[in-house]
Parts: sequence; C-alpha cells; structure tokens
Amino acid sequence: MSQPITAVYPGSFDPATNGHLDIIERAAKTFDQLVVAVGRNSTKSSVFTPDERVTILQECVAPWPNVRVTSFDGLLVNFVRELGVRVVVRGLRAVSDFEFEFQIALANRQMAPDIETFFLMTSAEYLYLSSSIVKEIARLGGDISALAPEPVQRALKVRFAGEGAAFP
Amino acid sequence: MSQPITAVYPGSFDPATNGHLDIIERAAKTFDQLVVAVGRNSTKSSVFTPDERVTILQECVAPWPNVRVTSFDGLLVNFVRELGVRVVVRGLRAVSDFEFEFQIALANRQMAPDIETFFLMTSAEYLYLSSSIVKEIARLGGDISALAPEPVQRALKVRFAGEGAAFP
Amino acid sequence: MSQPITAVYPGSFDPATNGHLDIIERAAKTFDQLVVAVGRNSTKSSVFTPDERVTILQECVAPWPNVRVTSFDGLLVNFVRELGVRVVVRGLRAVSDFEFEFQIALANRQMAPDIETFFLMTSAEYLYLSSSIVKEIARLGGDISALAPEPVQRALKVRFAGEGAAFP
Amino acid sequence: MSQPITAVYPGSFDPATNGHLDIIERAAKTFDQLVVAVGRNSTKSSVFTPDERVTILQECVAPWPNVRVTSFDGLLVNFVRELGVRVVVRGLRAVSDFEFEFQIALANRQMAPDIETFFLMTSAEYLYLSSSIVKEIARLGGDISALAPEPVQRALKVRFAGEGAAFP
Amino acid sequence: MSQPITAVYPGSFDPATNGHLDIIERAAKTFDQLVVAVGRNSTKSSVFTPDERVTILQECVAPWPNVRVTSFDGLLVNFVRELGVRVVVRGLRAVSDFEFEFQIALANRQMAPDIETFFLMTSAEYLYLSSSIVKEIARLGGDISALAPEPVQRALKVRFAGEGAAFP
Amino acid sequence: MSQPITAVYPGSFDPATNGHLDIIERAAKTFDQLVVAVGRNSTKSSVFTPDERVTILQECVAPWPNVRVTSFDGLLVNFVRELGVRVVVRGLRAVSDFEFEFQIALANRQMAPDIETFFLMTSAEYLYLSSSIVKEIARLGGDISALAPEPVQRALKVRFAGEGAAFP
Repeated sequence: MSQPITAVYPGSFDPATNGHLDIIERAAKTFDQLVVAVGRNSTKSSVFTPDERVTILQECVAPWPNVRVTSFDGLLVNFVRELGVRVVVRGLRAVSDFEFEFQIALANRQMAPDIETFFLMTSAEYLYLSSSIVKEIARLGGDISALAPEPVQRALKVRFAGEGAAFP
Repeated sequence: MSQPITAVYPGSFDPATNGHLDIIERAAKTFDQLVVAVGRNSTKSSVFTPDERVTILQECVAPWPNVRVTSFDGLLVNFVRELGVRVVVRGLRAVSDFEFEFQIALANRQMAPDIETFFLMTSAEYLYLSSSIVKEIARLGGDISALAPEPVQRALKVRFAGEGAAFP
Repeated sequence: MSQPITAVYPGSFDPATNGHLDIIERAAKTFDQLVVAVGRNSTKSSVFTPDERVTILQECVAPWPNVRVTSFDGLLVNFVRELGVRVVVRGLRAVSDFEFEFQIALANRQMAPDIETFFLMTSAEYLYLSSSIVKEIARLGGDISALAPEPVQRALKVRFAGEGAAFP
Repeated sequence: MSQPITAVYPGSFDPATNGHLDIIERAAKTFDQLVVAVGRNSTKSSVFTPDERVTILQECVAPWPNVRVTSFDGLLVNFVRELGVRVVVRGLRAVSDFEFEFQIALANRQMAPDIETFFLMTSAEYLYLSSSIVKEIARLGGDISALAPEPVQRALKVRFAGEGAAFP
Repeated sequence: MSQPITAVYPGSFDPATNGHLDIIERAAKTFDQLVVAVGRNSTKSSVFTPDERVTILQECVAPWPNVRVTSFDGLLVNFVRELGVRVVVRGLRAVSDFEFEFQIALANRQMAPDIETFFLMTSAEYLYLSSSIVKEIARLGGDISALAPEPVQRALKVRFAGEGAAFP
Repeated sequence: MSQPITAVYPGSFDPATNGHLDIIERAAKTFDQLVVAVGRNSTKSSVFTPDERVTILQECVAPWPNVRVTSFDGLLVNFVRELGVRVVVRGLRAVSDFEFEFQIALANRQMAPDIETFFLMTSAEYLYLSSSIVKEIARLGGDISALAPEPVQRALKVRFAGEGAAFP
C-alpha cells in the first residue's frame, strides 16, 4: 500500500488546446489525482478571463473523474504547497518551450526544492501547436476543429464573431 | 510542356530587409511567377501601414518582371487558394525562425493539405538580419545601407526623423 | 508555356523512412520531375550498399510516375549540374537537422550559386523519425511498420535476422 | 488506497555521473520503486562492460532503499512491459539532449502507447555534464571528484591508469 | 608594457541579476577597466528608470574598484567609440540568448568593424536566470535572495509592495 | 601601465578553416599575445598529424607577429596554467557549437576557476563552416579556396589526391 500521488498541471490555458488535453490525459493515467490550475496572472492580455478558462476547462476534463480544475493567485510554489502536493506536470513541445520551461522550473526549484517538475511530451501531431496559433486562426475565421477541444471552439467562435485580419 | 508554377511569398515586411529581397530573388529565379503578399494583420503594431509596405516593396521588386506585390486580409491559406496557387515560399534564418515557421506551416497544412510551404535559406550575410533590428538601428540614426534596400532606407529616414534612444 | 522543373532529392537513404517517402510525395506534386539520388559516400558505415538502397527506393517510389531513383559519386553539385538541374530538395525535421542542412546548403551554394536548395517540412508525425532509429528498432526485433515503407521493412528483416541488443 | 508506482530509469551509464545520480534521487522521492536499467547495447564502444556498470551503480544507489539496478537486452519497451511497469524516467539537460530524447520517446510511444516517459530536469550545476566529458577528463588525469560519484571515480582511475592525451 | 584594455558591458539591467553580477566580476578580473552601461532605450516598458538602474548598479559594483556604471543614449557602437573603447562584453546563457546576441553583435560589427564583442558564460547556477523572472517572482512576493544582489532585492520590494498575481 | 594579456586559442584544427583564421585575427587585435594550441588528442581519427597541423598553422599565422602556434598534451587547463595564462578564446558559430562549447567551458571552469573562456563570433560568412565540411569537399575534389587558407588548400590537395566519393 502506497501514498496516492496528486499532481498539479499549471498554465494560462488561454485557451486550452488539444495539446493541453493530451497532457492532461497522459498525466491523469499515471497519477491518482490531477489538479489543472489556471494562473490568474494579471500582466498578460488574454482572450478569456481566468474564470472563463476554468469553466471551459471543466467542461473539457469531464471525461476524467480524477481531474479537477481550479485557479490560483500568486506564486505557483505557494499554491502547490498549500495543496500539500509535490509533483508539478508540464508539457514539452519544441526548443523554445524547453528553455522557458527550464527557467520556470529552476526558479521554482530554488524556491521550493521539495517540489519536482515532471515534463511530458505531447503527441507528435501537437508538437507545434500553441494557444496563440489557435487564437490567431480562430480570430481570422479559420477552422480549429483539429486543434482545440469542442468547448474551446465554441467559446472562440463567440469571442471572435466579427473580427478579421491577416494570418502570416 | 508543363504547367507554370506561381508561388506566394507572404510576410509582414515591416519593412523589407536585404534578407527578404534575397529570398525574392532566389524564388523568382525558380518559379514562373512570384506574388509577394503583405499581411494586413491588425494586431501587431507596425512602423508602416500595409499600403505603405506594398508601395515600398513594389519599388524594391521592380528589377524582376515576374514578381508582383499585393496584400491580403484573413487567413493566408484562403488567399493562396483564391489565387489558385499551391506553393508558399518562406525564408529561414536561425533556429528561432525555424520553430515559428514550423508552427505556421503545420497549421496551414492542417487547414490546406494541398498547399506546400518551401523554405529557402537566405545568404549567410543575412542569416541574423531581421526587420526589427533594421527598424531599431534606423530609429537611433544608425546606417542601414548594408541591411535594407534603398526605398526602405529612404522611408525609414522620413519616419524616424527626430527620435533617438539606446540600442543594446 | 513554361520550362518544366526537375528537382533532385539527395540523401544516403540507409534506409528510406516514411519521412523520406513523405518528402518525395510532396516534391513530386510540385515539380515536374524528381530525381531521388543515393550518395555513394564511402566513409560512413551503412546497412545497405548504395545499389541495394537504389533498388529498395525504386520499389518505394513506383506509385509516382514522375520520380526516378539513381545514385551519384563525388560532389552533389557536380552531379546536379551534369543533369542540367538547378533545384535541390531536402527535408527538414528538428533543430539538429536544420544546422547540418544549413552547413551543407551553404557549402553547396558557395560552390554552385546557380543551384538552389528548397527545404520541405515532413509531416508532424515524422518530425522525430530518422534512418538510425528505424535501423536500431529493426535490429532489436521491434515493429517498424509505422516508420518505414514495406520494401524497407522486408529488407531490414532479412538483414537483421538473428541479432539482438538493448535499445535505450 | 492507491496502486504503488514503479518507474524505470534506462540508460547506458558508461559511467554514471552526478547528473544521473541527481535524477535517481529525484525519481526515488516521487515514485514507490525505481528500477535503474543498464542497456546491454552492443553497438557503442564503452569503457565499462554492462555488468561492471551494474556493479558500480549498485554501490552508488545504496543510500536509496527503493532503488534497484539491473540490465536489459533488446527493446526497452519490451523490458518495461515484462516488468509490468508503465512509467519511464529520463533526465533532460540541454537542447541536443532534448531532440534525441524526443526521438526515442516518440519511437517508444509508437511501439507502446501505454508506457509514458517522464522527463526530469537535472540540477543547474549538472546541466552540461555528460558521461563522455567525465571519461575524457579522467582519461587525461583530471580531477572528476565534483562530476561523478565516488565508485565511478575509483573505477575510472583503475581503467585509465597510464593513458594520456589532449583535452580540448 | 602594453596598452590597458577597457571593456564596455551594455544592457538594460532592469534589474541586474546575480547572473549580471557574475559577468561583471569575470570581466573585471580580465580587463583593466570595465564600464557597465545602462541603455536608455525608450521603447521597452521597464520597472526602473535608467537613472534608478544606474544608482542600483553603482551600489552593486562597489566591491570592484575598476568598474564604473554609466548610461547611454542612441547606438551602442557610437557610445563605445566615443569612449575610445574597442571591446564589448556580453553574457551568454541559453540558446535563445545566443541567437539574439548574434543578431545584435553582427549588426554592431557591420556598423563598427573595429569593435569586437566577447561573450562570457555565466556560472551554471545562473544559466536560466533572467531579469524578467526576477521581476515576476518579486512581484508575486517570492524570495529572490538567491537570484539578485541585495540592492536589487531592496528596490524591488519597494516597487512591488502591494501587487499580487499568478506565476506559472 | 597594465599587465600584458596573453590568450590561448585551443582546438584540433584538423585542418584550420577561414573561420579559425578569422577568430585568430580578431583575438590577435585585442590581446597582447595569442597562443594557438593544437590538441594532441589521440582518440579522434584525423587527416593531419598534430605536428602537420602546427606546421600548417604556423604558415597561416605568419601575418600576425603576436601570434605563435604550439601543441599540447593532456588537459587544456594544465597547459594553460603552465603558461601562466588566464584567458582562453573559442569561436562560436551555431547552436550545436554552443552546447558543446558550454560543456567544455564549464568542465574547465570546475577544474580551474581562475581561467576564463571568452567566446568570439566568427564572421557571418563562416557561421556554418567547419573542418569536417572542408575535408569532405576537398576529399571529393571540390574547390575549397573560399573556405580554407592557402596552406590548408595545398595540404589537403596532397592528402586527398586520388580519392573520390559522394557528398550529400
């Protein structure tokens, strides 16, 4: 008999993509409980409010009973510690990700050596997928049905009704 | 006897650099027709309006009779399809480019599998040249005569008359 | 009416993977003729002889009538020039590829400025696939049916019958 | 009450460095059991035999009661499956690692979708440490006491007694 | 008897981190004089004014008698030339740094071939440390005592008193 | 009046390329004395013996009176220390370089914290040039007059007379 392991998967999820859902599914299969945690970071301009992102994600993760969605203020390591959790999960895609993730993970480790970050690789088909590219295509009226889960598709359709501009 | 091939070279060209002109020259030598297409992307702040960029580029590409300049709204793949074109050309410089370009190219391929992106390498001397660095040097009164074509030099001189700030 | 364009796709193809076949298919759709050219490079140790690789590739490219397979000695640029061709095609996968390819392409450009290299991106699912990984898995008795075309699967099965060692 | 999780940490460990030990310590804190698995890969030339590497590692991991060392033949995914394990752990250091690891992890996922690879980041001080650099310094009589665990230092001293050559 | 060498270490230093101080210490040991030069770049939004950054840095570099701090307007190469200096020093951390630094260094070399940029590697422990991450952690009330020198810690505490938001 | 600074530029130089000569010229302009040091590393197979490489380099550096060429055995840091030197110079080209150089520089720093490595960027035109590519082209009878200094061209012509194989 062993201790159940809870992991936290933090992010801005503005909005969640199929790549994020892929990581959620993989993490949910390994760990006993998974907490998807939306950062209420006030400095980045976003398409959805943190509360909207939580609501959308809750609909997306409905298929996995051991996954719940919440949001957090302040430092991730404080939030994770308050939960009594020691495992953080992050997705890795390309090289630029890699360096940013290392920055964050090393800073977090400096502040909280007891918390460990585990990186998971997304499916090959999502290796170059990002929230920004999903937003950009949606904003220009493109089809994102292969890129984002259904609740995100719906929400983006509402949000971007009427706009239109060039996509490189 | 074969079908003539038209290629589209899309970008923001804010402004065009010698690196862009190098790609235009290379693409114009291989394909029958080349359409340089300025994206009317409304979200990035720019130094020149899309119409100004088209005008400047038209002057720059005058030497090549099979190159024309235009602009487009909305998704690139829609624009390319409306032209009946199946070849997109992009320049590749350094690693950061590479990842961004892959993101875009994969998203476009998902939306339009019949359109293929061909990457060309700029000359070694332009491998680390970008529109932002040209703008920054011009803004600070530096000499950009080795970095951008003559019409761009002229336009930047006008635009930045009077400003001045530090360049790292 | 325009000049037909022939492109050369050079490589060691030891052996061809689904990633190579993907590039061949993409190039064959754009250019009028495609010559897949196996380098008879004597310094690398290989699993198949150049002639075996040509034979295997010929079987693989049978579906595309405008693709033919051959091999070459000496410098690629000399071979391409003797064919009267000015377009070389290469696949791009990850960052390490990118730098090696740039080295080769710049060296070739120095020797033959009239020949242009066009880079194509493989499908996302093959972005991390390589000949070495296919060989390694086959050598250890693993299933490569999703990684390499059928003629390669058959050839590797014959070649590696009996061996067995660890795969990291 | 939850299922205990066993993870496998595969590698060539020729020899183990402080970076490897750092990963072992981190993984041992999260998972219930950790199996360090030395690949008996016959194609790379190595300084220690697989059996020597197992013996050295066993001495190194003595402080962690939930870690055991073994070796394996053939494909990693087969070995992991025979153990009834679904979690593989790998360390990540720099960009070149990253791409190689993605190749391996994607190939393994293709062969065994039920097995998941978790990547852990080594401590900042080991981010540029590798087995080859440890071997090279030891071979030239340099001090590796900050780079490799004590049993490795001892074994390398014995192995390289007498040699001497330049280190870049 | 030889000419004393003065080097310029330019940057935005908004704010200085332990990584910057590490570079200053290394450069001060090699060159006779070191001028730390804060760019008065008006386009980036910053936490401290250029004058505040100079004051903070002056306190930080007090231990090294051959280091002085100043600020500059306009192009770095003009500032360096006016000082009669020919050596610029920059720190290198990760890959993304590397490409940005190459862009800047090549542009500077084009404008001033007589000025040479020397890159120094920060200590391993600072390889993933940046001004932005220090600001972000401080803004959220985290402990930055291992990341930034004491005068920066104090200044950030004052500046960010009262704010609070999520850190990924 | 200040202390003259001597720098060591170590490498295998098998053979020297125009990129190496470019670094030598840049370093010779900044430092009082430059020692180009050929590593007598016995594990890599090479085209020229260490003594041949020293002889070729001596001819190449004749134009710079403050540059001398020698060779060394064993660890670089020991050699540098015996010379009483504290500055090592290395060239930086692309990303793969960068990581390898960081490995070496960090290992050297661990062994000799008093020795500092300064990285110089080669000219843009040599950013993708390497000894291996020069050897490969020469081996296949290609023209290397734009890639390597005259003494290297001559030496390679003699060495490779008669061989011939494919270049990718």
